[in-house]
Amino acid sequence: MTALAPHPDRLLPADPGVRDLARRLHAQVADAPILSPHGHVDARMLADDEPFPDPAALLITPDHYVTRMLHAAGVPLDDLGLARNGHPSPATGRSIWRTLCEHWDVFLGTPVRLWFEAEFSEVFGLTEQPSAQNADRLYDQLAETLADPAFRPRALFERFRIEVLATTDDPADDLAAHARLAADPDFRGRVIPTFRADRYMHPDEDGWAARLERLAAAADTDTTTYPGLLEALRRRRVAFKEAGGTATDTGVLDAGCDPLDEAEASRIHRAALDGTVTAAEAVAYRRNMLYRLAELSAEDGLVMQLHPGVLRNHHRPTFDAYGPDTGHDLPAVGAFTAPLTPILRDFGTDPVFRLVLFTVDETTFSREIGPLAGFYPSVYAGAPWWFIDTPDAILRYRRAVTDSAGFTKTSGFIDDTRAFCSIPARHDMSRRVDASYLAGLVAEHRLDEEDAFTLARRLVDDIPRATFRLG
Amino acid sequence: MTALAPHPDRLLPADPGVRDLARRLHAQVADAPILSPHGHVDARMLADDEPFPDPAALLITPDHYVTRMLHAAGVPLDDLGLARNGHPSPATGRSIWRTLCEHWDVFLGTPVRLWFEAEFSEVFGLTEQPSAQNADRLYDQLAETLADPAFRPRALFERFRIEVLATTDDPADDLAAHARLAADPDFRGRVIPTFRADRYMHPDEDGWAARLERLAAAADTDTTTYPGLLEALRRRRVAFKEAGGTATDTGVLDAGCDPLDEAEASRIHRAALDGTVTAAEAVAYRRNMLYRLAELSAEDGLVMQLHPGVLRNHHRPTFDAYGPDTGHDLPAVGAFTAPLTPILRDFGTDPVFRLVLFTVDETTFSREIGPLAGFYPSVYAGAPWWFIDTPDAILRYRRAVTDSAGFTKTSGFIDDTRAFCSIPARHDMSRRVDASYLAGLVAEHRLDEEDAFTLARRLVDDIPRATFRLG
Amino acid sequence: MTALAPHPDRLLPADPGVRDLARRLHAQVADAPILSPHGHVDARMLADDEPFPDPAALLITPDHYVTRMLHAAGVPLDDLGLARNGHPSPATGRSIWRTLCEHWDVFLGTPVRLWFEAEFSEVFGLTEQPSAQNADRLYDQLAETLADPAFRPRALFERFRIEVLATTDDPADDLAAHARLAADPDFRGRVIPTFRADRYMHPDEDGWAARLERLAAAADTDTTTYPGLLEALRRRRVAFKEAGGTATDTGVLDAGCDPLDEAEASRIHRAALDGTVTAAEAVAYRRNMLYRLAELSAEDGLVMQLHPGVLRNHHRPTFDAYGPDTGHDLPAVGAFTAPLTPILRDFGTDPVFRLVLFTVDETTFSREIGPLAGFYPSVYAGAPWWFIDTPDAILRYRRAVTDSAGFTKTSGFIDDTRAFCSIPARHDMSRRVDASYLAGLVAEHRLDEEDAFTLARRLVDDIPRATFRLG
Repeated sequence: MTALAPHPDRLLPADPGVRDLARRLHAQVADAPILSPHGHVDARMLADDEPFPDPAALLITPDHYVTRMLHAAGVPLDDLGLARNGHPSPATGRSIWRTLCEHWDVFLGTPVRLWFEAEFSEVFGLTEQPSAQNADRLYDQLAETLADPAFRPRALFERFRIEVLATTDDPADDLAAHARLAADPDFRGRVIPTFRADRYMHPDEDGWAARLERLAAAADTDTTTYPGLLEALRRRRVAFKEAGGTATDTGVLDAGCDPLDEAEASRIHRAALDGTVTAAEAVAYRRNMLYRLAELSAEDGLVMQLHPGVLRNHHRPTFDAYGPDTGHDLPAVGAFTAPLTPILRDFGTDPVFRLVLFTVDETTFSREIGPLAGFYPSVYAGAPWWFIDTPDAILRYRRAVTDSAGFTKTSGFIDDTRAFCSIPARHDMSRRVDASYLAGLVAEHRLDEEDAFTLARRLVDDIPRATFRLG
Repeated sequence: MTALAPHPDRLLPADPGVRDLARRLHAQVADAPILSPHGHVDARMLADDEPFPDPAALLITPDHYVTRMLHAAGVPLDDLGLARNGHPSPATGRSIWRTLCEHWDVFLGTPVRLWFEAEFSEVFGLTEQPSAQNADRLYDQLAETLADPAFRPRALFERFRIEVLATTDDPADDLAAHARLAADPDFRGRVIPTFRADRYMHPDEDGWAARLERLAAAADTDTTTYPGLLEALRRRRVAFKEAGGTATDTGVLDAGCDPLDEAEASRIHRAALDGTVTAAEAVAYRRNMLYRLAELSAEDGLVMQLHPGVLRNHHRPTFDAYGPDTGHDLPAVGAFTAPLTPILRDFGTDPVFRLVLFTVDETTFSREIGPLAGFYPSVYAGAPWWFIDTPDAILRYRRAVTDSAGFTKTSGFIDDTRAFCSIPARHDMSRRVDASYLAGLVAEHRLDEEDAFTLARRLVDDIPRATFRLG
Repeated sequence: MTALAPHPDRLLPADPGVRDLARRLHAQVADAPILSPHGHVDARMLADDEPFPDPAALLITPDHYVTRMLHAAGVPLDDLGLARNGHPSPATGRSIWRTLCEHWDVFLGTPVRLWFEAEFSEVFGLTEQPSAQNADRLYDQLAETLADPAFRPRALFERFRIEVLATTDDPADDLAAHARLAADPDFRGRVIPTFRADRYMHPDEDGWAARLERLAAAADTDTTTYPGLLEALRRRRVAFKEAGGTATDTGVLDAGCDPLDEAEASRIHRAALDGTVTAAEAVAYRRNMLYRLAELSAEDGLVMQLHPGVLRNHHRPTFDAYGPDTGHDLPAVGAFTAPLTPILRDFGTDPVFRLVLFTVDETTFSREIGPLAGFYPSVYAGAPWWFIDTPDAILRYRRAVTDSAGFTKTSGFIDDTRAFCSIPARHDMSRRVDASYLAGLVAEHRLDEEDAFTLARRLVDDIPRATFRLG
């Protein structure tokens, strides 16, 4: 067996002098509360506070960061617990866990391995690296641990020192779980919804009309017209704000946002309900909707998060068999400056409007996101996200964005995860990398040590609080 | 108060061994004369040699690197001295300075802060970091200093050890200030014009016809025809050469340069004067003009500097109120290899022609600029410029371009600045980073120490001299 | 004179602690056999085993990495031995060598210099850096060395410890040289062909019909029809497999691969033979052919290597005078994820199909290649190649690709070279850089030392063996 013992200096610089400073910078924030303003944990998990199911269902099956790499190594998704064509996977929790253990080497050098090592060790108390030999024994240990009340969601929420956890929610969601949590005197955490209206922006998508109906019911207004849809979104945004929400989230193929006049948008809306919408009209409608979401943010102050450039469901056969979010949403070339012109022209200097830009294309950090955040008061450079939420990419981000935008126009870290138990490991990775970056600046006499300590604190506290209007 | 004392080892590597070598490499060139072959200082400033106005008018208001970041932090441009809709700003020099001091933290970690610290300390003798508390005191100290004759432009020019300063000038400019300087036996500096014909390339731009008229007067030839315009440009290039100019500068949206035949170019020229030019014709005309500028460079040997890919005046409301150069010219995706085919096909191996490529999109360093400079004898890889004239980006440039083009096909540093007092700090930053890069190569046994010393000298001396034909 | 003595620690990290580990990691693989699954050495050179001609004809003239940079420094290609318009170059081996020596400084800091230093020192025993002064003496020494039987191709092949050398061959090639090598009991090396069908994919290219005829003869089938061409390719692939081939290689302008139905492809095929094919049809035909090559790989299991994005023969006058491969094939923007959708949809999870992606555009490492290799079991992230087969770029590759794809989905190093004597130096460079990368991960406690040793071995052994199905 090989010991599982994440090194206290992991992710800190190799140079002894720089490492020492990085260690002190990290120590200062290692136990700071977690602000998680962008993620995908389900509020019901915390509202219900049921014990977690088996280890694989908690740690492997729902985490496409993990299943993706196992699939790349030749493991069929069936073996990882994914339901195929609606038929439950024949894999058991134990067999899935064993598959992970047998392929433990494919994660060498990756952030997934570092997150897992931190989780396994610090959350679950494992002391051995997974392997084919010890797979069953570790599985038993994990299963036993999960039965302990100290490992229920709320207990972990407290233990993880999460101060704010933002979920991601459909506008038609009734936010009942958020309400239960807010009403529960025993739960003191802050779990807030994020308004994600993506599925109302694509009038050529299957199920659009049905979703409009569901939204109409939730908002108590007619959505068969375009103004009605806008009104429904506006009302639901009010409801999200009342439930504590401070932000929206939007993912689109591109950041185009040319507004349409109401007559044209209404015409396309009707055509879509009639089933006659063209692909070009659907694109125009989607881009207009992006503009309208910005317009609404300029009205109500919900922070607009935008992440264009993901090609969804790239492998059609996998999508057909296993559904979405199964590891083949893939990055595309990013662009912000030119396509966002309409939104920034009209709201870019509006003090109510705020826009956090995330990318899956690193080339935009120095070319677009940094310069935009370095001029527009409304624009913030979002932390590295999906595919680039990794130690090296976070460093590259700081090295690219700081030049144009400094620290105060960056968003602070977001974990963007479905994997609840990985949240502390992800935030800790970010804190370590930021500590390393700051220590490097000090070592090169580009920053005073005192300023580095101040910035390390601000990056996990007032900077994300201000960016996301967390109060 | 916090001391303002730029560290002698700033920007040098953290590793003690590498730092020691970098320090010695830097020491060798720290006091080398400054060759500034590309910048935006006004020759009249030196010809007139008047005392500088107040500190803010010297250091803040005209420098869009600075105003940009303050604006991003929420400071209205009015508060920074910019005239709005023709009305002078209500801000005073003192209030503007105070605004900078109050927002000093937004520059942490940025090159602007490092330039400022070097200027404040080494040029103006400040000993405290600016803060809300000491703003007025520092302002008084700066104002008093500026009243000292030793702080007039020419005295600083000498103190900065500037050997050559290239300005940027319109072809219609009479270059009178350059002539006054050349004729003045008391001024021994070399201030040379750079021919920038951008504003004659866009026949659909407001004022194009009026500019043609002004150019006609300057060149004493008719510019109402396309051949007349070319002839006027040719004549003015002669005048620029006679005034010491060795280079031209061109900024365009893209590097497309398909030549038109004379009949077609003439037709568009006439259509533009008639006010009937279409957008597509204007683009074709602009691209043809880029080709013609290259053709002229192949005739007269003026070094052609090209920097495509900047989206000018991105925020229309700011442009309407405050005019151009107010911080929202933004980088776009770069491309050189494909669009420059016509120019390189016809002049790429011509020994008279020379082309220095600058980019605002770093991805082109290893993909386009390095490979082009590594084949075409006429092509040089321009130093990192605007938005990427920063310590980290300069290192990335060396790490990307050297592989394909070595050192001898790079341009040497350009400061590209309007901020006269930042010139020494900018060149020093570049020298420090190059010293660090060279020291790193030696430390990894990729370069002999002796060669590193030779290259460090060449990078501030014969390499830029040769690139820009400074003699 | 300056000593030529490549440092034993060259390319290893400067930090003493990290260097020590990197040194040990490298030592472990320094003498490992070379697997060269992708290159451009001619099998006839080994089959004939004649002495090499003069040093320039071996080391300079055929290596466009070298001639490119000398040309960029102003040396005409005539002076480097290239035939112009069919007339042999007036340059002699000695004069070409002298030209290299006189321009030795243009290679400072480049990988070409490091390869040359290793070759000159370790293969040829030179002890002085080339210079104008010692050029003749070194030339004599090299010429004398090449006359030694120990410097014939097969002797060097053994001395270089090459276990597998893949060549690159036209489908119409009879592979006679490979057969002679295989049949020769005195030669124990493995020299295998690689199937490169590029020249059959462009029906609008000069000579396409003539090449079809030659292929028809080689495959003993009619290629005047589209199905006939596919059948000919299929048959030749069988012949390549029988000759030991395990892979194909394809270079195209872009990775578009939309399949055509047989009728449409046949129609374009006929139009091309009739000389009436349009540019758009030729593109559609080429993209269909890329799809068909993937389809064939899914049938026969030959590993498909793909490197889109090179603009061939950028400088038309040089191409007209000197022909192809003369240093002005230049990188273009890369794209994989969107254009490869058809191939990956149909074969991406097929266990027989395998696709190794190479790029000349580094931006695709973290944005496209890593994520694709991190989901599709068939996709491997090809090592940095052409223009980016350099120490810094290899590090950037690891830092970008490992996050998404780990180590096991990377291809292992390829040397891609025509310069036979540079093969050991190129592989050694890659091994040193990988050792440095792994040592850095260990030093930052991101990888166990034991795992680093295992990975260092695997990267030169079972990983390339598995990727390229070398058995």
